[in-house]
Amino acid sequence: MADFDIHILGCGSALPTTRHLATSQIINLRDKLYMIDRGEGTQVQMRKMRIKFSRLNHIFLSHLHGDHCFGLPGLISTFGMLGRTATLHIYGPKEIEEYLYPILKMFNQNLPYKIQIHIINPSQHTLIMEDRSLEVYSIPLNHRIPACGFLFKEKQKEAHLIKEMADFYQIPVKCLRGIKQGADFTTPEGEVVPNKRLTRPATPAKQYAYCSDTAYYPEIIPIIKNIDLLYHEATFAECDAARARETYHTTARQAAEIARAAAVKKLMIGHFSARYEDDLLLKKEADAIYPNTILAKEGLILSL
Amino acid sequence: MADFDIHILGCGSALPTTRHLATSQIINLRDKLYMIDRGEGTQVQMRKMRIKFSRLNHIFLSHLHGDHCFGLPGLISTFGMLGRTATLHIYGPKEIEEYLYPILKMFNQNLPYKIQIHIINPSQHTLIMEDRSLEVYSIPLNHRIPACGFLFKEKQKEAHLIKEMADFYQIPVKCLRGIKQGADFTTPEGEVVPNKRLTRPATPAKQYAYCSDTAYYPEIIPIIKNIDLLYHEATFAECDAARARETYHTTARQAAEIARAAAVKKLMIGHFSARYEDDLLLKKEADAIYPNTILAKEGLILSL
Repeated sequence: MADFDIHILGCGSALPTTRHLATSQIINLRDKLYMIDRGEGTQVQMRKMRIKFSRLNHIFLSHLHGDHCFGLPGLISTFGMLGRTATLHIYGPKEIEEYLYPILKMFNQNLPYKIQIHIINPSQHTLIMEDRSLEVYSIPLNHRIPACGFLFKEKQKEAHLIKEMADFYQIPVKCLRGIKQGADFTTPEGEVVPNKRLTRPATPAKQYAYCSDTAYYPEIIPIIKNIDLLYHEATFAECDAARARETYHTTARQAAEIARAAAVKKLMIGHFSARYEDDLLLKKEADAIYPNTILAKEGLILSL
Repeated sequence: MADFDIHILGCGSALPTTRHLATSQIINLRDKLYMIDRGEGTQVQMRKMRIKFSRLNHIFLSHLHGDHCFGLPGLISTFGMLGRTATLHIYGPKEIEEYLYPILKMFNQNLPYKIQIHIINPSQHTLIMEDRSLEVYSIPLNHRIPACGFLFKEKQKEAHLIKEMADFYQIPVKCLRGIKQGADFTTPEGEVVPNKRLTRPATPAKQYAYCSDTAYYPEIIPIIKNIDLLYHEATFAECDAARARETYHTTARQAAEIARAAAVKKLMIGHFSARYEDDLLLKKEADAIYPNTILAKEGLILSL
């Protein structure tokens, strides 16, 4: 079972190339799937990566540019054809309603499932979704239109029970949950066995942040401090820094500066401009600031 | 230079698979491009097939189901980013306005080119577009929603001038056009040289018809009689004939019956259901009625 994996479906920018698809990725947290952005043509990529459509219940849209959302109507239709019944939750800036409602009205009058749209304010850093295993926060970004990134914060997990100790003390099943969550155990004779003798520490909870599209924007650094993986856009190389400023995008070097300042454990860059034949140029520029930068790539699965 | 080529960008039906993309194709008539339908994800296929975006000025939509039009917004945006200035003509049923106008308003306020929408009545067989080299006719089909196919009818071409004869009679350049179009030549001495001594017959004009999506619908046969190539949908195999009827689609065998009755010179089938692992099953069923049926395939280029 996947623990906390990031699947890259597409990591190009708006202009189509043979090298990249438009932006979309999936987070697999112990077999529950969360999607970020939905560029055109990434459904086939889901099939190629054998991603189970039925496990996906939450889609997060960073902003309403076509290369981040033109694949959504097709996915919504596909879910319908597959007979989905579970509600699909879509999170995004308010423009999402203006985009989706006419399309739903025209193409999806008889969907067998409900779509619930959750409007988020991309200029606020706030909790936007929470379930048993995860909290998702918005990260305000600086783009030509309202845009935000997302911080996926796994909840603190339970400690690992030491089976031999549980057997030795014949701990009743009903007590196990409490012990995993930190309780001591009191034997029928009244002996108190401290929790730390019964458990090994939980696997540390992981954090992942997605920051695309955005100009160089150091304001995000406190939010992403020390996280396990940062995906940051790196649309341009340094030679096109002026173009990056104009279009509110980031260079690979700037993305690496953000990663270094935030002391993240890993950096992955993506949203590559169509103008570079070889993305290694971008990796090289990022590596000079933040070594071992990972280049996003269609089909890549990265485990946190 | 291509004379009259059909490029298959996608030939699957609505459910995404790793084997096929959603429907889209391009007709290349002496380097002018005409597109039929526009499923999601076919832009990358255009890049792979090295199709020049700037040569495309006319897009024909058969009907407003998502697997035939969800790729249109992305293409419109791409044209904008590429700095297109030529007007883009889009032909389709009236629902096309309801689909496109909100998207254009939201994503494409500042396109550097104009989009002209031509509403067609899919229940009529009529001339819908004409230029110097081509006439395009609608072909009423029988689907769940209003839908039509398209007949691409090349105009009669000029005869081939026999260069040796032109030299022998020292025919002035200004007379050549007329001769290619059938005129005799009169020498300065008054001798009349008949056209057939000066020219070889023109290459015959070609005809291509696209019929998808549709139930088995013999009403189309008179319209496509004797044409050079028929692309007909063949969503289902004979074992799923009931499903074909229910969903207003055609079986491979029925497509072949249409082709045989219309005595078309070649048949290509497409719009394959996701349920068949191997499309050869469909070819086999079609071949039994109309031998040498061609299976559509992403990347296939067929010259008429």
